[in-house]
Amino acid sequence: MAQVDTPITRTTEDFLAPARIALRGVGQIMFQGHAGTGLFFLAGIAMTSPAMLAGAVLGAVIGPLFAHLAGYDRRDVEQGLYGFNSTLVGLALPALLLPSHPLTWAADVVGCVLATIITRLGIRFLRFPAYTAPFVVSTWLLLLAIHGAMGHSIDAPAPPPAVEEGGFWAAVLRGESEVMLGANQMSGVLFLVGIAISNPWHAAMAFLGSLVGTTVGVYHGDPEADVSIGLFGYNGALAAIALFLPRPSLTLPLLAAVISTPLTEYFPKELGIPALTAPFVAASWIMLAALWAERRLFVARD
Amino acid sequence: MAQVDTPITRTTEDFLAPARIALRGVGQIMFQGHAGTGLFFLAGIAMTSPAMLAGAVLGAVIGPLFAHLAGYDRRDVEQGLYGFNSTLVGLALPALLLPSHPLTWAADVVGCVLATIITRLGIRFLRFPAYTAPFVVSTWLLLLAIHGAMGHSIDAPAPPPAVEEGGFWAAVLRGESEVMLGANQMSGVLFLVGIAISNPWHAAMAFLGSLVGTTVGVYHGDPEADVSIGLFGYNGALAAIALFLPRPSLTLPLLAAVISTPLTEYFPKELGIPALTAPFVAASWIMLAALWAERRLFVARD
Amino acid sequence: MAQVDTPITRTTEDFLAPARIALRGVGQIMFQGHAGTGLFFLAGIAMTSPAMLAGAVLGAVIGPLFAHLAGYDRRDVEQGLYGFNSTLVGLALPALLLPSHPLTWAADVVGCVLATIITRLGIRFLRFPAYTAPFVVSTWLLLLAIHGAMGHSIDAPAPPPAVEEGGFWAAVLRGESEVMLGANQMSGVLFLVGIAISNPWHAAMAFLGSLVGTTVGVYHGDPEADVSIGLFGYNGALAAIALFLPRPSLTLPLLAAVISTPLTEYFPKELGIPALTAPFVAASWIMLAALWAERRLFVARD
Repeated sequence: MAQVDTPITRTTEDFLAPARIALRGVGQIMFQGHAGTGLFFLAGIAMTSPAMLAGAVLGAVIGPLFAHLAGYDRRDVEQGLYGFNSTLVGLALPALLLPSHPLTWAADVVGCVLATIITRLGIRFLRFPAYTAPFVVSTWLLLLAIHGAMGHSIDAPAPPPAVEEGGFWAAVLRGESEVMLGANQMSGVLFLVGIAISNPWHAAMAFLGSLVGTTVGVYHGDPEADVSIGLFGYNGALAAIALFLPRPSLTLPLLAAVISTPLTEYFPKELGIPALTAPFVAASWIMLAALWAERRLFVARD
Repeated sequence: MAQVDTPITRTTEDFLAPARIALRGVGQIMFQGHAGTGLFFLAGIAMTSPAMLAGAVLGAVIGPLFAHLAGYDRRDVEQGLYGFNSTLVGLALPALLLPSHPLTWAADVVGCVLATIITRLGIRFLRFPAYTAPFVVSTWLLLLAIHGAMGHSIDAPAPPPAVEEGGFWAAVLRGESEVMLGANQMSGVLFLVGIAISNPWHAAMAFLGSLVGTTVGVYHGDPEADVSIGLFGYNGALAAIALFLPRPSLTLPLLAAVISTPLTEYFPKELGIPALTAPFVAASWIMLAALWAERRLFVARD
Repeated sequence: MAQVDTPITRTTEDFLAPARIALRGVGQIMFQGHAGTGLFFLAGIAMTSPAMLAGAVLGAVIGPLFAHLAGYDRRDVEQGLYGFNSTLVGLALPALLLPSHPLTWAADVVGCVLATIITRLGIRFLRFPAYTAPFVVSTWLLLLAIHGAMGHSIDAPAPPPAVEEGGFWAAVLRGESEVMLGANQMSGVLFLVGIAISNPWHAAMAFLGSLVGTTVGVYHGDPEADVSIGLFGYNGALAAIALFLPRPSLTLPLLAAVISTPLTEYFPKELGIPALTAPFVAASWIMLAALWAERRLFVARD
């Protein structure tokens, strides 16, 4: 008895699929291939600035779309792996440059595509995760190009340094928010809840990572104005989840969060360019290298 | 052939039993259910102040007596588990309030009973050790009540801050002494010897804990006047023994001692109330939680 | 059929054997019983000062020669175990005292012999490695004797403190160079290459150890002039290799490097005598003791 193929019909599901992929890409900013997480993240970004929300949506669309057109691995596209770097570029440039200037948005589109291509190179050639390195590299290149061409004329004005209210725990929550270049507690809460609906352990790691990173910053006597906006939390939050992925534990994630703070502190100031999530990437790569060395080289020789 | 019950006779042993239980309670301040340890501790407390010795004896009697009358578990009473929090309250209030004022002693008796009740709640409802939390909570409540009613009029005058003599090792020994609110090296030595006759490993942990806590304080540039009186040693000493109990090792006890120092440093000053052993309790609970998480949640999933 | 003994002939090999043993002793300064390593080390020492090179060669000869004449274990002599402390004394005294003064060289010879005897005592009576303690003790004794007899009249003038060029990575390389009392990057590179031809893992540990020690120094806000000449690198480099030997891993070597920095910082300044490699020896002994305790005492009781 022959099996009858169901006729192909366009259902609501089909129309929603691209949106779901775009949202998964947003969720992947904090390692969640979950569209619901992406929605929470967009809500948190909206609380920071409408221009950044627009940029995030732009990036969330461009990344997977370009990857699809370029014929990158379908499963990777569907999991949002081509979305998160593009989304980060998308929201970062309108935060670092004047959103009112057309060049900002031209650069944004170019940056999103560039981040997607670099993401592809990472997946193809690296034997370890690139994390948000494609976002960092693309954004740096575009900022350097714009500074080279136009000086700092379209840079968004930096807020004057001031200690934010709310003390330690507010700084920890702002650390979550800073993952997407925000600095408000409510975004931080939305990000944590968004992660938790996908994976509560990862939410716990994000919280502990920001807690540890901020604690080290306070203990090292870093400027209160920097601590209070969550500057020593976001890299720790990301690094803690990143090191939780290869093996669920506390030791490696918390150690990664610890070393993210010196890396944030000593990010070379003379570059005149923001660190973005480079300290997270560096901390995680260092820990992965240590973990790899400990396992492959040393344990095997015992 | 029927077994003949020996007739009940009151021997010297029977008369000494209550004293032994009271002394075990004193010994339990540093985790030793050993009457000899308790004697050494009382000798060390006597070297600090006669009023504190009187308070300690008062507390050592009230705790087990109340527990006995209230019908708490007999074996717990006999092991001194209802003695140490009461003893600590007993010696702390005459150190923090004027020993010449009758209210000090009225508060002392109330505090000892309160600590015993809270100890019972901890044993009954917590699935982890309460450590000296009953002492901390009772003493804080009574101090707040007295300050509310009478202001700071019967507070014992705080000694003017000054660097004590003897350098690093003297500070480490004073760290032992500070467990019972003293600050002299000889008490510290007596405490260590008292622990050693019960369990030499625990004495080693108490020493290493104070050593590590003090080292971190020095390394972090804490005020010499605070370091020199052992302020960064006592929580480390207690935390090191506490984390040695679930599993004999060096790693967890020393790590607990390390984190006890920031907790001591950042104990909120604005409360206007002494930290007592709260940093020890916090450090140990954090380490227990981490140990529990690492074992139950993560190892099992591997 | 009887086996015919080959007649004894003096080959080139025989003439080179003593030189090879002397060079192995130089290599053992950083744990390599390898003559090629010794050659690289001598080249690196030569770049620092010709007087130190002369002293190093003197020490490299005296140590094994005295050990041979005194009838110490032949295999130990051949492995260079009686060479490295003597070589260090040999190069250190002409660095700390005026090389133009005859007493410097008389002291140097005495010191080399003394270090060799103490090395023998260590091998005979200690159940753990003495590391460079014989060098440290001999040099201290001779400096104290000379200061006692002649004051500081023949001390080599200390260079005025100044921040060396090249930033962090230069300081890390100078940390290798400081193992043999130099402070130039090229020596550091020669030392690393010399180790690598014997054991690339040990070279990696030497590099990481200096990196970690220097990082802790920077993070703790130590004087830039001290950091820049590698003062917080050399003990870490040595301690990292030392703790790699009992068990190949990253954790123990890096932890040993971490604690070498406070030990360097807090080496008692009032002694008026250089720390030499005492912080390395202390850090390694502490870690060995902890490792021993963790393994023998605690693991066995589980």
